[in-house]
Amino acid sequence: MNTLSPDALHAARQRIAEAVHHTPVMHSRALDAAADARLFFKCENFQQTGAFKARGATNAVFSLSAEQASRGVATHSSGNHGQALARAAAARGIRATVVMPETAPRPKIEAVRGYGADIIFCAPTNAARQTTLDAFVADTRAEFIAPYDDVRVIAGQASCAAELIDDVPDLDAVIAPVGGGGLISGTALTISALAPHIAVHGGEPSAADDAARSLESGQRCGNDAPQTIADGLKASLGAITWPIVRDHVTAITRVSEDEIVTAMRLIWQRMKIIVEPSCAVALAAVLAAPEHFANRRVGVILTGGNVDLDRLPW
Amino acid sequence: MNTLSPDALHAARQRIAEAVHHTPVMHSRALDAAADARLFFKCENFQQTGAFKARGATNAVFSLSAEQASRGVATHSSGNHGQALARAAAARGIRATVVMPETAPRPKIEAVRGYGADIIFCAPTNAARQTTLDAFVADTRAEFIAPYDDVRVIAGQASCAAELIDDVPDLDAVIAPVGGGGLISGTALTISALAPHIAVHGGEPSAADDAARSLESGQRCGNDAPQTIADGLKASLGAITWPIVRDHVTAITRVSEDEIVTAMRLIWQRMKIIVEPSCAVALAAVLAAPEHFANRRVGVILTGGNVDLDRLPW
Repeated sequence: MNTLSPDALHAARQRIAEAVHHTPVMHSRALDAAADARLFFKCENFQQTGAFKARGATNAVFSLSAEQASRGVATHSSGNHGQALARAAAARGIRATVVMPETAPRPKIEAVRGYGADIIFCAPTNAARQTTLDAFVADTRAEFIAPYDDVRVIAGQASCAAELIDDVPDLDAVIAPVGGGGLISGTALTISALAPHIAVHGGEPSAADDAARSLESGQRCGNDAPQTIADGLKASLGAITWPIVRDHVTAITRVSEDEIVTAMRLIWQRMKIIVEPSCAVALAAVLAAPEHFANRRVGVILTGGNVDLDRLPW
Repeated sequence: MNTLSPDALHAARQRIAEAVHHTPVMHSRALDAAADARLFFKCENFQQTGAFKARGATNAVFSLSAEQASRGVATHSSGNHGQALARAAAARGIRATVVMPETAPRPKIEAVRGYGADIIFCAPTNAARQTTLDAFVADTRAEFIAPYDDVRVIAGQASCAAELIDDVPDLDAVIAPVGGGGLISGTALTISALAPHIAVHGGEPSAADDAARSLESGQRCGNDAPQTIADGLKASLGAITWPIVRDHVTAITRVSEDEIVTAMRLIWQRMKIIVEPSCAVALAAVLAAPEHFANRRVGVILTGGNVDLDRLPW
């Protein structure tokens, strides 16, 4: 699946339209001046569950047959995807189970519980997550909805860029943070189907730069226990998202931890909105790479706002 | 001046329309559920300079004759009014001077400087502010634009409620925080002229409750060196704002410091927007007084978002 037809994109967008927000686009003259560009911030921090993940999870859950749905859904997630799946399952009236690391931020654990999902805690390693989830799925035959490497999820995330290009004419580029690649893949599929003249860019923490290395080498690379404040971007590209990134993404810009915190503070101070560190990576990349963005009209996807207010990075 | 005609309100709104934002109205199902009401948040934290004060200061500066303007403008302010006046003066191309207490939050000092105003620091007492300002005005014949007790300022603040009732039909009540009374007076004048069936409410820190005491006693009271986290609400009603409050405000609800912080965190967490403590007083009052607000459609004016991110109250 390296493309999605306009009809398929439209179908996913319609499927979730009642259950997610068409989020607003915001501007900031101060940030335009800082970037020497015209920036259009797509505010997924205002999305249901506080992050774009609501789109993909809802599309996946709403796509299930009645028989599949009756068995419930399950996933592993340190945060936003878990909340999104929990909420989507509640909206359809089915059971959701989320495998979470014991170290997940408290507000994210509470939010998953608040949507009525069951939580199974595991050790904070990728192996433990997968083993715990596999055992649960084998036992219950629940439908696994992966956080990003799932066509249904990617098609849901694609609706974000579709709204953005509907609302903002004449964009030159769109940029999104890159973790496992669900959002950037959905964005790339939308742009290639509906507005192929727009360049698709990614931003990535230098400490979790698997996508940048993959794009440079032409081979899918992984991250080895990355340490970054951008906790939503530690995952590596998957078997489905990698070829989409390879074929449709112009460049991925690396940013340092300091650049992420600086961008996060700029958004808080200048736009008066709350974004999480992973989210700030897109603006950090715009500021770090004027060769790609200066003097252009850039859609910047602000992915989420789920922050532990008691543990801010400054 | 206990009323303003629809024409006078309209003229002020038109005068500032190009220089300030028509701010958005936001919703939150979580906060609706917490208040058992339907809340419409008027987001002045997204206003120019990060606070509604831009409206009043702009109307005052844009109302000056060319001769008055040539002498420049001056005020005393611990924060948002100073920024607003500095920006309004810059927009008109005239000089602004702001007397600020040495203890003013650093971001507010930097913002005033950023708009190109001159700052004169004084001791952090009302007496020192006034003496310093009086000396400067006597010396330069600059036009004093008071933070709230000024008809031009009040008429500018009135534009906020005018936008709100344009954008949200069938409100039952509007609530604003009360400091010196400029915003609540402007709000009351708009509502009494254009939508007199809507109840006008105020919220006030218990620690600076001069308006509540004034309304209860029928006599204008003052605050004596109030200690509250809501630093924008320490001022007392003025000679102009008091009779407007007396004649048009239904009730003023007192809230504790804890209630202010709780409301502020709720807004940050649930709405993903940044508001300052003074701003959170309106929601705190809605939550504290269900007898006034439960099951009603309530416009909540979020007054500003200028917070020192290094000194959060939790």
